[in-house]
Amino acid sequence: MTAPTAASAGAPVLDAPPMTNDLFLRACRGEIVERPPVWMMRQAGRYLPEYRAVRAKSDFLTMCRTPELATEVTLQPIDIVGTDAAIIFSDILVIPEAMGMHLVMEESVGPQFPVPVRSLEAVRQLRTPDPEVELRYVLDALRMTRGALGGRVPLIGFAGAPWTLAAYMIEGKGTKQFSVAKKMLFQQPETAHALLARLADAVGEYLVAQVKAGAQALQLFESWAGSLGPQEFRTFALPYLSRAAAIARTAGVPLIVFAPGASWALELLAESTGADVIGVDWHIEAADARRRLAPHGVSMQGNLDPCLLYAPPDIVRARTLEMLEGFGGQRHIANLGHGILPDTPVESAKAFVDTVKSWRSPATAR
Amino acid sequence: MTAPTAASAGAPVLDAPPMTNDLFLRACRGEIVERPPVWMMRQAGRYLPEYRAVRAKSDFLTMCRTPELATEVTLQPIDIVGTDAAIIFSDILVIPEAMGMHLVMEESVGPQFPVPVRSLEAVRQLRTPDPEVELRYVLDALRMTRGALGGRVPLIGFAGAPWTLAAYMIEGKGTKQFSVAKKMLFQQPETAHALLARLADAVGEYLVAQVKAGAQALQLFESWAGSLGPQEFRTFALPYLSRAAAIARTAGVPLIVFAPGASWALELLAESTGADVIGVDWHIEAADARRRLAPHGVSMQGNLDPCLLYAPPDIVRARTLEMLEGFGGQRHIANLGHGILPDTPVESAKAFVDTVKSWRSPATAR
Repeated sequence: MTAPTAASAGAPVLDAPPMTNDLFLRACRGEIVERPPVWMMRQAGRYLPEYRAVRAKSDFLTMCRTPELATEVTLQPIDIVGTDAAIIFSDILVIPEAMGMHLVMEESVGPQFPVPVRSLEAVRQLRTPDPEVELRYVLDALRMTRGALGGRVPLIGFAGAPWTLAAYMIEGKGTKQFSVAKKMLFQQPETAHALLARLADAVGEYLVAQVKAGAQALQLFESWAGSLGPQEFRTFALPYLSRAAAIARTAGVPLIVFAPGASWALELLAESTGADVIGVDWHIEAADARRRLAPHGVSMQGNLDPCLLYAPPDIVRARTLEMLEGFGGQRHIANLGHGILPDTPVESAKAFVDTVKSWRSPATAR
Repeated sequence: MTAPTAASAGAPVLDAPPMTNDLFLRACRGEIVERPPVWMMRQAGRYLPEYRAVRAKSDFLTMCRTPELATEVTLQPIDIVGTDAAIIFSDILVIPEAMGMHLVMEESVGPQFPVPVRSLEAVRQLRTPDPEVELRYVLDALRMTRGALGGRVPLIGFAGAPWTLAAYMIEGKGTKQFSVAKKMLFQQPETAHALLARLADAVGEYLVAQVKAGAQALQLFESWAGSLGPQEFRTFALPYLSRAAAIARTAGVPLIVFAPGASWALELLAESTGADVIGVDWHIEAADARRRLAPHGVSMQGNLDPCLLYAPPDIVRARTLEMLEGFGGQRHIANLGHGILPDTPVESAKAFVDTVKSWRSPATAR
């Protein structure tokens, strides 16, 4: 393990070594590439035996909070699967925790907030987090990982988007319908807006801090976009996602926005968030996403159904090739259309990554 | 409670009284109406105190299996909320049970099959159900309800679509990602196709039997449409949904197909299933659905977000009016975009229904 690289405050890491593989950053910026870069959401995860070995000795939150462990598992997929980017091992719920909420991670139930936020008073009691204080452990993990990577591949930082975090904070846990959170939108809209505004600033500042600590690109996860219909999405999700994105963009690195379950909103996200890259989930065919997003001058990231990695390797390869051709080879970052599943065979993950890496993009941009 | 009306085998109920309110059937057939008819998915449900009173004395499956109880709760929303159609109280999982699977309904967990179907051998061991034998209790409930309705409003029968039933049968329970069921699609596609083919026939025959027992319209619920991407939906869901629909259509009553979570497939469903009505979930705006489906000459059903019924009555009214205007007033059956939630205030359900009933459609078809 390499010692942490200190990031100079307010600017990207200045003494960092040059990138040996900057394909991911070039694709984010829409430059012509020889092939799409590839990484996988949740690539540092339970499908890797090496991850499970670390996890066997520490619980999930301890791994998040211990920079050495977070760095170790962040690097695993780079070494084992050979992805073109690293994403820091962390969780979207670190922000609500940094705002003062008690977070409990129970193996079988998933993350829970035993005391949810359900009133304006509860919103007022939330702390405005200072990333270098309450979230220092994430920033330390970024600094350490950036150093350990030594320029091999770029490092991605991330955060949950305001509506997604608010939904968790109001519900207190993950649910299928988010009916408690949605009830607040309809019964106490001013409480919801107050919470969302607090979150937009906290998320934006946290992302900027991640860049100062060494993140070379950022991803905003609006994981529960699909819980809102178009009108509520425009009222309660998009303005705060855009506000967090606007703050994050001041850090000057590429920004990816991913809103799974809201394929209808692809164009809207491209127009409203100023993102360099729009994530595409597996509910939409690659060629459709490309046709819809091409006029907006953004890059795209996605979108193989993670369940396809259960298929035999020849089918994984065939479907990956179809996806690559659908996106057309430029302004595309190959990825899954959702996080990789814990029982995915490592061989299938490699077949996916290797198929992308042996493919060649048509030389002309679309 | 009126005595059951015997249905003549092979034909609709011949001695049934004339309909006093046939608005729903006219809208299904695309006839010009003075206003859209209105009903709500799961309208016989826990939001009604009168339902909870019945439920307090009998468990869910006993209610399904006891025609007197099923009839009683089927009629409740007609009397209490004033909807323009009744839908028989039952469950989509009665078909797997009729095929020989042991169904357990546990309050906190939801329905479960302790012995799921995961091999070709298990598919072969499934029984081909005779609706008048294994599902006689549903048909008796339909006969009894049709008699008790006395022509006040039409009676809708329903079934789960093959992929949705297969997903439950393979998983053994509801899940968020259906990764076990999807794994079968990629690892044992022949087993999946064999199961789906058996289900398509069973579902189709069951729907025909429901019409013989008095159902005046049918709805096919592809409740887990959203678990499949476009390519898998076309391979594993649509062909079997269409086959079940084709059998059901021989019964000669209007057919509604509802595939929540697959808004991308609206046109495909209209083209492929021959349905008279396509259900629209709340992820899409009414005017968009109308624009996309208008060329296909089908009616539409939906689509207020059930969570909107948490809002104060004036907002329920305003949003219902927006929805009615979006659909345009013809070829539209007003409904929610998903089942009504258990903690919905009855007053809000009434505000929704009353708003539709006091609205007037523009006289001209779109």
